[in-house]
Amino acid sequence: MSDRKRKICVVVASRANYGRIKSVMTAIKEHPNLDLQLVVGASTLLARFGPAINVIREDGFEPDATIHYVVEGETPETQAKTTGLGIIELTTIFNTLKPDMVLTVADRYETMANAIAATYSNIPLIHVQGGELSGNIDDRVRHAITKLADLHFPCTEISRERIIRMGENSEAVFNYGCPAMDIALNSNLEINNEIMESYKGTGDPIDWAEPYLLLAQHPVTTSFGNGFEQIQESLYAMREFQGYQKIVLWPNIDAGADEVARGIRSFHENQLDQNARFHYFKNFSPEDFVRVLSNAKCCIGNSSSFIREGSTLGIPVVLVGNRQQGREHGNNIVSADYNRCDIKQKIATQLKADRYDRDSLFGTGNAGVQIAQKISEFPLPTTKQNTY
Amino acid sequence: MSDRKRKICVVVASRANYGRIKSVMTAIKEHPNLDLQLVVGASTLLARFGPAINVIREDGFEPDATIHYVVEGETPETQAKTTGLGIIELTTIFNTLKPDMVLTVADRYETMANAIAATYSNIPLIHVQGGELSGNIDDRVRHAITKLADLHFPCTEISRERIIRMGENSEAVFNYGCPAMDIALNSNLEINNEIMESYKGTGDPIDWAEPYLLLAQHPVTTSFGNGFEQIQESLYAMREFQGYQKIVLWPNIDAGADEVARGIRSFHENQLDQNARFHYFKNFSPEDFVRVLSNAKCCIGNSSSFIREGSTLGIPVVLVGNRQQGREHGNNIVSADYNRCDIKQKIATQLKADRYDRDSLFGTGNAGVQIAQKISEFPLPTTKQNTY
Amino acid sequence: MSDRKRKICVVVASRANYGRIKSVMTAIKEHPNLDLQLVVGASTLLARFGPAINVIREDGFEPDATIHYVVEGETPETQAKTTGLGIIELTTIFNTLKPDMVLTVADRYETMANAIAATYSNIPLIHVQGGELSGNIDDRVRHAITKLADLHFPCTEISRERIIRMGENSEAVFNYGCPAMDIALNSNLEINNEIMESYKGTGDPIDWAEPYLLLAQHPVTTSFGNGFEQIQESLYAMREFQGYQKIVLWPNIDAGADEVARGIRSFHENQLDQNARFHYFKNFSPEDFVRVLSNAKCCIGNSSSFIREGSTLGIPVVLVGNRQQGREHGNNIVSADYNRCDIKQKIATQLKADRYDRDSLFGTGNAGVQIAQKISEFPLPTTKQNTY
Amino acid sequence: MSDRKRKICVVVASRANYGRIKSVMTAIKEHPNLDLQLVVGASTLLARFGPAINVIREDGFEPDATIHYVVEGETPETQAKTTGLGIIELTTIFNTLKPDMVLTVADRYETMANAIAATYSNIPLIHVQGGELSGNIDDRVRHAITKLADLHFPCTEISRERIIRMGENSEAVFNYGCPAMDIALNSNLEINNEIMESYKGTGDPIDWAEPYLLLAQHPVTTSFGNGFEQIQESLYAMREFQGYQKIVLWPNIDAGADEVARGIRSFHENQLDQNARFHYFKNFSPEDFVRVLSNAKCCIGNSSSFIREGSTLGIPVVLVGNRQQGREHGNNIVSADYNRCDIKQKIATQLKADRYDRDSLFGTGNAGVQIAQKISEFPLPTTKQNTY
Repeated sequence: MSDRKRKICVVVASRANYGRIKSVMTAIKEHPNLDLQLVVGASTLLARFGPAINVIREDGFEPDATIHYVVEGETPETQAKTTGLGIIELTTIFNTLKPDMVLTVADRYETMANAIAATYSNIPLIHVQGGELSGNIDDRVRHAITKLADLHFPCTEISRERIIRMGENSEAVFNYGCPAMDIALNSNLEINNEIMESYKGTGDPIDWAEPYLLLAQHPVTTSFGNGFEQIQESLYAMREFQGYQKIVLWPNIDAGADEVARGIRSFHENQLDQNARFHYFKNFSPEDFVRVLSNAKCCIGNSSSFIREGSTLGIPVVLVGNRQQGREHGNNIVSADYNRCDIKQKIATQLKADRYDRDSLFGTGNAGVQIAQKISEFPLPTTKQNTY
Repeated sequence: MSDRKRKICVVVASRANYGRIKSVMTAIKEHPNLDLQLVVGASTLLARFGPAINVIREDGFEPDATIHYVVEGETPETQAKTTGLGIIELTTIFNTLKPDMVLTVADRYETMANAIAATYSNIPLIHVQGGELSGNIDDRVRHAITKLADLHFPCTEISRERIIRMGENSEAVFNYGCPAMDIALNSNLEINNEIMESYKGTGDPIDWAEPYLLLAQHPVTTSFGNGFEQIQESLYAMREFQGYQKIVLWPNIDAGADEVARGIRSFHENQLDQNARFHYFKNFSPEDFVRVLSNAKCCIGNSSSFIREGSTLGIPVVLVGNRQQGREHGNNIVSADYNRCDIKQKIATQLKADRYDRDSLFGTGNAGVQIAQKISEFPLPTTKQNTY
Repeated sequence: MSDRKRKICVVVASRANYGRIKSVMTAIKEHPNLDLQLVVGASTLLARFGPAINVIREDGFEPDATIHYVVEGETPETQAKTTGLGIIELTTIFNTLKPDMVLTVADRYETMANAIAATYSNIPLIHVQGGELSGNIDDRVRHAITKLADLHFPCTEISRERIIRMGENSEAVFNYGCPAMDIALNSNLEINNEIMESYKGTGDPIDWAEPYLLLAQHPVTTSFGNGFEQIQESLYAMREFQGYQKIVLWPNIDAGADEVARGIRSFHENQLDQNARFHYFKNFSPEDFVRVLSNAKCCIGNSSSFIREGSTLGIPVVLVGNRQQGREHGNNIVSADYNRCDIKQKIATQLKADRYDRDSLFGTGNAGVQIAQKISEFPLPTTKQNTY
Repeated sequence: MSDRKRKICVVVASRANYGRIKSVMTAIKEHPNLDLQLVVGASTLLARFGPAINVIREDGFEPDATIHYVVEGETPETQAKTTGLGIIELTTIFNTLKPDMVLTVADRYETMANAIAATYSNIPLIHVQGGELSGNIDDRVRHAITKLADLHFPCTEISRERIIRMGENSEAVFNYGCPAMDIALNSNLEINNEIMESYKGTGDPIDWAEPYLLLAQHPVTTSFGNGFEQIQESLYAMREFQGYQKIVLWPNIDAGADEVARGIRSFHENQLDQNARFHYFKNFSPEDFVRVLSNAKCCIGNSSSFIREGSTLGIPVVLVGNRQQGREHGNNIVSADYNRCDIKQKIATQLKADRYDRDSLFGTGNAGVQIAQKISEFPLPTTKQNTY
């Protein structure tokens, strides 16, 4: 076993997952002692999310397996069932691929499915982005995955310390920064119409050279049932800023996504003002998403990228609601309630701020290679030991 | 909502589960402000485990649903799939029963299935027996469930403190002792042939009035593949004690159970000595199990009951292997390796010890009513908050 | 058993299912010797189909269970997985409801899931709409369900004979006509803006008093991958008829639905003509759908309702492609290829025809009560016997 | 596509399946224009059935995937769920292996799972052993699979005609005899202790050179609940024949298997007569099973092999109960009720008959190569057409 490569199975199960782990995938692929096994599943395959599988393939990654396991409905019930179905499917695939380690990212239900399939299959588990706080159901899932994992790559120092305080062995917890920042800090951030030509979107025409606001607001699963109104508060607040174009991202697949989408559609259909300049997109490649984010005059919503990439690049953000409650962030963040007046006021404040200093809280852009190197060296655990 | 009863759904998914939670079920059923919803599933329904569902019904509990979801095979792969299938099934049932809270017990994969189904269904989760250490895969699963749960009933003071150290809010963590001890400390422990008449078992005839050794040794999932030899070391060690009858319990349904069962069968078929006096049982009711345990001259194996009930009642135990590694226990425990000579020597030591003092480490016999009362009062959480 | 009511479990698993079986559900509910058990699942619950569950509840039917089991993706792979997940879920529900008979409708994969869950659960199976021919994968599924069923209610005489030729016992096969025709023949078919006020749809404003064409074209699963172009041929053909409004129904959930939907969206976004007068709807109640169909000047596409309700009411139809190949129909049908010129020409022909005579091929409007009566009398089978 | 080999995926999902299809697997493997893809799943992997996977590997077949999907319990409910889980798992595997055709055998629920997974995945389906009659639930499942299949290889002339009468295109239905007979007619049938040395079994010692009776009696799923008594009638009848050894095979995994197994165990434990000479086996390789069958003085029970191999080789059989009702057979069969007196009398009759003439009803021993050749030539269907 000593002179064969370690097989590391990465499961990409949502568009957000991919951007967060891409630099690690590249580093594993290029590492002399590691073999990358890639499983692409769940919403990554779904057309209505602008299938991320296409982006992954264009980036030169060929999946060992693609698996559908999203139970449709976007309710709490279907989130749970998707987790169950994912465990069943991934177990069969792990049994075929026989990886030495499985890598799982962050805190979603697909992440939990990977973690449980690997744990009960006796395959050591690597967890990236553990130890953070964000409010919402994600907190408990993220920490539960920490307790299942053997090797941890948190993205901040405070997260590293929290994982150790939760009883994990400090010799298995390493902070090399967030791999998503590898893209943010090493990409060309220029934006213009030519570069963005391939993204069609819907709504009014957009001129990428002109100033714009960016909205990315996902459903909050623990307040399932309020998404329709929550998104509309943000949309009506943005409409007040007539001098700006508005770019709106469709929500992810969490419980409540349908409500949020209905909220957006209802807002759009009731627009009387032909010059409101709203534009709607499903998906960007990780690099192009950073472009869009970094050139926004202000970001509005609750996407965790606003905190990570936003803090790293110093982008003004109005953080709406409690989905990211408690998460560490730079001083680029101003919080607002689900209230159009409050949101409007905070946007105005941030537009005055223009840009913030870059913050190295989430790393300095070389997480991927360091994580891959550590994975190649880490002694394969047999039985996990807690420190207490 | 204030003047209707809270619906508390208890999921019993293994024979061991039932003994651990029975006194809580009784207390919930009898509490004026609580309604008991009972789901019985997984190995509790399987004939080859001496179906525990019959015992449950005889005790006066009528299930709201019985659900098969064990994927057969007893490999790591099928444990994972059972978890996945359990999540799917339990989600549908929770959606039908609409409980206010779901209660899950201990650390097995069926327990994990309950926990995830409840968590993603946005139903507050109660966890009993969290915070312990035991070695094996159970540790990480138990702690992961802790991170998913809203209300915790650990069974020892050290477990309570560990849960709080893991970041749970101390106002949601209560140590009332272990509900399994409610049975051990409030039952008639007398044993004789008349009382035990209904249990047939197989093997040589047994006389319950005569001295016996008791073996209960479950597969260790993280060393899947060694169960055949591990059990035989214990069996051959016991055979040396010709003055005693030997009672052997068939293993539970964990990955590797089939190997352990084969080890027992192979041992039995190769017995030449007609007077070895080995007797094999599948299952006892919780009360009768305590009888059998408390009258044993020495218990051998790795059942957690040897530590809990054994410590509480002062029964000499030879703990074999590392399945319970790190678990708190009384001074009734002597450890041994998977080695017949070592085990034999430790049995001899324990037979000399005869009995130990009772230890109140796991409580004083009134956990069930205290837990039910706390469940009735606890403010229903909306979003769980960690302390850090 | 003789003096208790028979429990008949109807599973409604798609919007189309409901219209087809509603009059039977009503008749079972009102029958003195029958109890209706209702399970609503699959796409009936999904928002993007304009959830039919709401219509069902408004009609006074309260489900005993609602279950999500659509695996998202609309590919052949996800159709198969939906069938598998449906079997698992329905088995658990049948085990809880313990019906005397299960009723399943037509030929879709959800129908197959009901049929298999009932068959292996040893519950006698009633099949409505068997014995027809239509081309596509539906043929083989429909006939397979026939071979699983115990009691058959085909909708035409030829279908009845075909079922018997396939080896079914003629004493278990009854043609009372199609229950969907009970609605078509007993409803008020008047249409105006007031009646249709609650249906918003999208696209250009519609005036229900003005003449319109109706398009309903579903994906053809055996030619998965061509849906985008197939639908566009019909849309471009319809656009030629400037004197008419055009009503377009979104496709059902079969494999390929996403392609068809993309075809519609792409067509719509590329419209330059502001006066094309296209209007898009997701869903109507069964009664209102008949209204819309019966007042159309011409129906275009491949919906089976065009053949059933269309023939019964004498509505001109241009049947596009081979999805309904071989199905019996009245003389109201003209066939066309997936070719905009051919379709255009056939529409012109049908517009001249205006209306056809009503055809009683699919019954005379009292199927529901006759079916319920037969269900109440039919000797419950133990073991099914073929005639050869 | 013209000059690459066709990939034919065979799914072996029970020990019985393997013996029935082995000669076809060999012929596919050796055919110049075919590639064999092998999936081994369900009870083939389970230890308590004497895992057939080992026999398959020893025969030189290496599976492309092994998949657990048996839901444990052996009730009607778990049969249904196993079918559902099998569909999910096989769909994922078919999507990975991308076969040109899938081959499924006979009439069990695992067979149905293959059939549905292939059908909805748009993969042409080959069915071997269709068109027969046997009573039990198997009839309807077998005929349903016929209606799903594209290419049929029935094993008798009457079966071929029945398939065509059910509406299948006669140009897709070929009778080359039963592939299981390829083994029966081309094997060395000699038996002695040396050859059979590797089979241990349990019970009394056996001398293969001495005369013996053979019992193989499976649960009858449509009379779930009576298996315990049904098997005991046969066992008590056999006990009367003191001059013979008795070989008993454990039942397969159908609903009710557990009852049958309990019936056998209860009979065995209540044996007072030390000389009853009962011997119990789990499994033989297909070749050794034919040896055991062909050397039996009389076969008792309801195994379909008694009809197939029994008729082909002229072995006296007492067919008990209605599980094979209506199945074609040679004149070697005498039927008996579930009644020990009736069975005893029929055994006595058959022992006098000694041997019957061989019957070529099920073929002449070269089915495998003919089937493989036809598979290589058959035009790949796009849309299946019925003849009416």
